[in-house]
Parts: sequence; structure tokens; C-alpha cells
Amino acid sequence: MARWEPDARGRLMSAAMELFADAGFEQTTVVDIAERAGVTERTFFRYFADKREVLFDSSNELQTVVVDAVTSAPATMAPVDVVVGAFESAAVLLDNRRDYASQRAATIAANPGLQERDLLKLASLGAAAAAALRARGVTEPAASLSAETSVTVFRVGFERWVSTSSGDLARCIRETLDELKALTALP
Amino acid sequence: MARWEPDARGRLMSAAMELFADAGFEQTTVVDIAERAGVTERTFFRYFADKREVLFDSSNELQTVVVDAVTSAPATMAPVDVVVGAFESAAVLLDNRRDYASQRAATIAANPGLQERDLLKLASLGAAAAAALRARGVTEPAASLSAETSVTVFRVGFERWVSTSSGDLARCIRETLDELKALTALP
Repeated sequence: MARWEPDARGRLMSAAMELFADAGFEQTTVVDIAERAGVTERTFFRYFADKREVLFDSSNELQTVVVDAVTSAPATMAPVDVVVGAFESAAVLLDNRRDYASQRAATIAANPGLQERDLLKLASLGAAAAAALRARGVTEPAASLSAETSVTVFRVGFERWVSTSSGDLARCIRETLDELKALTALP
Repeated sequence: MARWEPDARGRLMSAAMELFADAGFEQTTVVDIAERAGVTERTFFRYFADKREVLFDSSNELQTVVVDAVTSAPATMAPVDVVVGAFESAAVLLDNRRDYASQRAATIAANPGLQERDLLKLASLGAAAAAALRARGVTEPAASLSAETSVTVFRVGFERWVSTSSGDLARCIRETLDELKALTALP
């Protein structure tokens, strides 16, 4: 019998983050998460394949938003600006979820298996952004170089945003890009 | 009874690469590798923990060489040049092993589990290079940005070297860095 569960997904995510922070990722079960969120286990599995996916569902979402933004960027933009710009548009989405992002980062940092998963998700994001650049006519190695460097800029900017209490994510990303440009300035 | 086995390690690596290419990584056993190299299984385990380590032993070696080169670079060098320069010194080591490197790349490309392992090794290399930069007094985020961007330059340059039949690896890395500098040129 299906019940109406307003924002079950959001409540499951918050419940999971609280439990991961309090009891640890390993010690938390799907039953614990469902219970704290006030939904059934079955409802949990309607939204997530397992407890790890509560953390990485947002990575898939980020990839979709970034690839769409790369695809629809003006044709005249330089590839690095296209991808970093795509991360900036995605940043707006994340600004409303600062607490979630920071709890998520702490959980991942505490668990080597999750750190590996996070690195692989970032690599997949880079590969998807490179493919989207190639579809715009950017050749290799410029496509991979631009996409992977932009992922580094995003990762470092994101870390700065999570570890500081003020500022928005888009600005952190833009400042990190400026820093990279200074570090790689010709000659 | 120990026998004298000239370059058992090198022969095990060549034997493994041939078998991975012919029969596939999954289908090849340690017994097969030892047999083809003309050594005992016990000798195999004196050099490698398992068949996967035949592929990733060189990643550990690369990391040691790169970290040493970062540590001993002239104090006045800019961080990106320090790390890319470290990869260039390591490149000399790899130039003699082009066949191995290209067979290794093909084996990894054919196996998603090995691709993940390779990505994690590259991430670990980036983290180690960033730590070596911080030990030189480079602050964050410059240390991580420089190290991770340099790993991207190395990865893309390495891929170019493996997929072309001529040229040395150091030159491929230097050309890739020049390309990145052009892509991120101010403003």
C-alpha cells in the first residue's frame, strides 16, 4: 500500500548524512536510514540502490547538468571556459545544499573505499565532459586536457567552498580557475 | 633450492604482458606467467603480490622517482614546472620500456577493473606530488592545482607517446604542457 511521503528522497538523504556522521558509514544500515527518515525500507530502495548511492546520486546529477551545459555553450567559447562555465552553472544547484555537501565530504574523507568511488566518479565526469567537447568539434588532446583540468579546478574550488563558511561555490570555482591560469601562465 | 635466475623480474613482466595480450588478463593465472617465464610460482611471489601487481609495480616506481625529483628541484622553479619536470626525468626511465608500456596500456584499456586501479594510482601520484610541493613551501591550493594538473599533462602526454610510433616521452609531455598553457592562457 503506497503512502504519500512528501520529499521522501530529501528526508532519506538528510537521515543518511546524520547517521553517517554519528555512527559512521560502515555501521549505518539501510534499515536505520529508512527508520530515521520515517519511511519503509521499500521506499528507500525506490530511490537508491544501496546506502552508498545516497552519497553518489548527486555525482550522476552533476554529470548530467555539466554535460548539458557544455553541449549548449556558445560556439565561440574556449574549451576550458566552456567546461569551467558548466561547473559554475551547476554550482547554483549545489549552493542550496551546503550542509549536505559538507557532511557528504566529511563522510567520504573518513572512508577510503568512498574516496576511491569519489575519484572514479570525478574521472567519469572528466571523460563525459571531454566527450561533450569532442561533440562540439574540439580535437584531442585539447578536449581531454581542458575537461580534466576543469575537473581539477572544480574539485579544488569545491574543497575551498566546503571548508570555508562563506562565499558561493561559483565564485570559489572562478577564483581557482584564475589561480590555475596564473600558475600555468606563458612562457 | 634457490636457482640463479637472471632478470627473473623482467622475464616475469614480459611473460605476463604476452599472456595478458593473448589470453586476456582475467584468463591468465600466476602459474601460466611463471611457466612462460621459466621460473617457479614461488619466484613469482618473491617479486609480485599477485598478477595485477605486475602491471602496477611500475606505478609505485614512477611515484618514487617523481617525488624525489620534486623534492630536489631548484628552489626558484615554478610549481607546475617542478612537477612536469619531474615527469620528464621519470620519462627517461620509461623510454627504454616502450613495448612494455604499450602492452600494459592495451591490457588496462581492455579491463574496467584495471582502469579503475590505474586512475586511483594516478590520483595517489597527484596527492604525493602535492605533498612534496607543500614540503617545499608551496601553499594550497597552488600545490594541489599544480600537482593534479601536471598529472593530467603526464597522462595525456603518455597516451600520445604510447599511440604514436616515434618520439620520446619527455618531448610528448613537454608538448602537452605547452598545449595546456595555450588552453589556459590569460585572460
